[in-house]
Amino acid sequence: MTTITHLQARDIRFPTSRQLDGSDAMNAAPDYSATYVTLTTDADDAHQGHGLTFTIGRGNDVCVKGVEALASRIVGRDLEAITADMGTFWRDLTSGDSQLRWLGPEKGVMHLAAAAIVNAVWDLWAKREGKPVWKLLADMSPEQLVQCLDFRFVTDALTPQEAIALLKRKEAGKGEREAHMRAEGYPGYTTSAGWLGYSEDKMRRLAREALAEGWTHFKQKVGGNLEEDRQRARILRDEIGWDRELMMDANQMWDVDEAIANMRDLAEFDPLWIEEPTSPDDILGHAEIRRRLDPMGVATGEHCHNRVMFKQLLQADAIDYCQIDAARLGGLNEVILVLLMAAKFDVPVCPHGGGVGLCEYTQHISLFDYIAVSGSLDGRILEYVDHLHEHFVDPVRIERGRYQVPEAPGYSITMHDDSLERHRYPEGEAWHAASNEN
Amino acid sequence: MTTITHLQARDIRFPTSRQLDGSDAMNAAPDYSATYVTLTTDADDAHQGHGLTFTIGRGNDVCVKGVEALASRIVGRDLEAITADMGTFWRDLTSGDSQLRWLGPEKGVMHLAAAAIVNAVWDLWAKREGKPVWKLLADMSPEQLVQCLDFRFVTDALTPQEAIALLKRKEAGKGEREAHMRAEGYPGYTTSAGWLGYSEDKMRRLAREALAEGWTHFKQKVGGNLEEDRQRARILRDEIGWDRELMMDANQMWDVDEAIANMRDLAEFDPLWIEEPTSPDDILGHAEIRRRLDPMGVATGEHCHNRVMFKQLLQADAIDYCQIDAARLGGLNEVILVLLMAAKFDVPVCPHGGGVGLCEYTQHISLFDYIAVSGSLDGRILEYVDHLHEHFVDPVRIERGRYQVPEAPGYSITMHDDSLERHRYPEGEAWHAASNEN
Repeated sequence: MTTITHLQARDIRFPTSRQLDGSDAMNAAPDYSATYVTLTTDADDAHQGHGLTFTIGRGNDVCVKGVEALASRIVGRDLEAITADMGTFWRDLTSGDSQLRWLGPEKGVMHLAAAAIVNAVWDLWAKREGKPVWKLLADMSPEQLVQCLDFRFVTDALTPQEAIALLKRKEAGKGEREAHMRAEGYPGYTTSAGWLGYSEDKMRRLAREALAEGWTHFKQKVGGNLEEDRQRARILRDEIGWDRELMMDANQMWDVDEAIANMRDLAEFDPLWIEEPTSPDDILGHAEIRRRLDPMGVATGEHCHNRVMFKQLLQADAIDYCQIDAARLGGLNEVILVLLMAAKFDVPVCPHGGGVGLCEYTQHISLFDYIAVSGSLDGRILEYVDHLHEHFVDPVRIERGRYQVPEAPGYSITMHDDSLERHRYPEGEAWHAASNEN
Repeated sequence: MTTITHLQARDIRFPTSRQLDGSDAMNAAPDYSATYVTLTTDADDAHQGHGLTFTIGRGNDVCVKGVEALASRIVGRDLEAITADMGTFWRDLTSGDSQLRWLGPEKGVMHLAAAAIVNAVWDLWAKREGKPVWKLLADMSPEQLVQCLDFRFVTDALTPQEAIALLKRKEAGKGEREAHMRAEGYPGYTTSAGWLGYSEDKMRRLAREALAEGWTHFKQKVGGNLEEDRQRARILRDEIGWDRELMMDANQMWDVDEAIANMRDLAEFDPLWIEEPTSPDDILGHAEIRRRLDPMGVATGEHCHNRVMFKQLLQADAIDYCQIDAARLGGLNEVILVLLMAAKFDVPVCPHGGGVGLCEYTQHISLFDYIAVSGSLDGRILEYVDHLHEHFVDPVRIERGRYQVPEAPGYSITMHDDSLERHRYPEGEAWHAASNEN
């Protein structure tokens, strides 16, 4: 028996708004931040579980408070009992306290908070098994995987039996696909050149650098001034040509009819998809936008808060690309359930990567999806944003536009101690000079 | 110029779980609680604005933290400037800080927190005008009302111009309907007898008392053991007969197919509606349940977190009754917008009342709806729960099953100072004895 003896929740923030890294029409000045959870056990092996939820600055302290409200549901519990029945643990953490459930259910601060804890459990489990998370998952039987999931509210779209059947369908080629990934890596795309706050010179320079690095898919932010959006699309097409893919991301700036009108205008730049054209809650709105912009692709999901919402996006034929966020969904268990639903509805999953630690998480998710769930790379491309990786013990490695397979045990989300120390908010050194501006 | 000089947020909790008041299948042991906001100004008139968000216990401190995160968006501002353009104020509070918006958007803890602040502004405004909130609203012109609203993300269902036209349509009979309400009150229904934790004897006694008091609509909780649900329906039908209405409330316990199967079983008790049959996020699920249970009514909304979700419930023909919550939506501005959309789609609004302070709020909403928006009582019935009204300075008054029109200035949500003092969590007297059990 291994008891989880302690949960620590830290408010970690990076002052990214000073450079306008990550700036888009909705999120003008983000300070990439993490509600950072560390789980400690009484085992002799000294392994700790690390998990984080990404936020963009103010309010990260509210998330920390949310984690603290949930801590009593995990501290004192037996780790092996949890991992033996992760589905039950997950439901207990996200909905087991009916008083806390009232604050959602399964959305907003409390669900973000739950995600950090859930992912820390996966990190701890994988470290103790000596495997990276993607490999821990890929080695499970369909029945073991399904036992990790909570099908509440989605059985009209996917039952546990169907999920097992989906996984069995892909069991045969798992070894081959794993070897393929180790040899070639998982294809990525970059948003680095396309943020709103950048000058034309900076855009061109970053686009050229990205081309030289081997990237083939490029994303730009839209949703500000339409003429400026056009101008930035022109610059990017000018740099990347027409054989490479350009994606556009509106970050929820538009109403439904506005999204349709603006994207008809931007259609001449042949975007592969329009991402977050409107409110992330608007399932029927996305369906309408997709129908009227056909054949342009519609993508959303980084703000889609739970499996019930993704279920409906799939049922309503609202999306061409499913962009889960590793810690807005309630951690890996809920992510896996969405991977399975997306596979059933034949919609590719292209996880959200714009944040701190998100690329570290999502490489595990997309590898697992390819090896064991969808078995396909068609239409799949994993977002890469080149920010803040230096703070991680086991950062993502990119070669020629492809994620290289992580081999270190865990979920790759452990930060260096000194990074954590320097970026504690508000007392860390990184915030000393900035305290008056922020 | 009147400056808002101070915002106080208090964690107020009532130990209702000791009596199982408010117990249902999902919410087994709630401690009715309030994130209680008080706004102070520099005016000589000594008016304060009071607003609360309802929660059911643990996590109320997280909401208080959420209010504190929003405080800087209102403290120091000019009240007249806010009330002159409430729509802009509302958008600024709920979405103006892009870093905080990331935690939702417009859902969960941060939206609950915003609601308490928004409602406190309305309370303060109405007190300074010397009017109850319903009257403040009813006296506004259509243009003034529409200026209070944020139509972002709903213009595909309702434009400001359509909203003005809807309000103009009902301008003629406003005086008459106001007089009607003062003479007769607004029709209510009671859940008092139907909570899950009660014995048969207690149910029968409470049902008889309610009948004697003149109630004609009764609600019971379902979603636990189906045979027990049937047994409690039998008891209630036995007491109230078949000419009065029985409603059922599953509090989100079922998956879609399960809801349909169980309600087909319970259909013999002729429920007027099934409330919250499944996840509050499942718009398409509610539509499917409604289609397959036709002609039984489907009701939901107390956990519907914003106008975008209500828009879709209406667009998808998912509900027969729209049950807004006065403080889960982002306060009165967003409630008014939902009233207008419901009027356009011809769906009656029957607000949620099971909580502390909710009946005090909703009487204003339903009176305004009748006088100025829908102009109708058809299918409209306002929930009444007989708990904790004694803590309010201006509590609801019920006569023969009808809400009597509140005449005191404000939103009726101001609590007695000694109630606030005794129920502060965890330091208040009400919690001294209970601190070990809770």
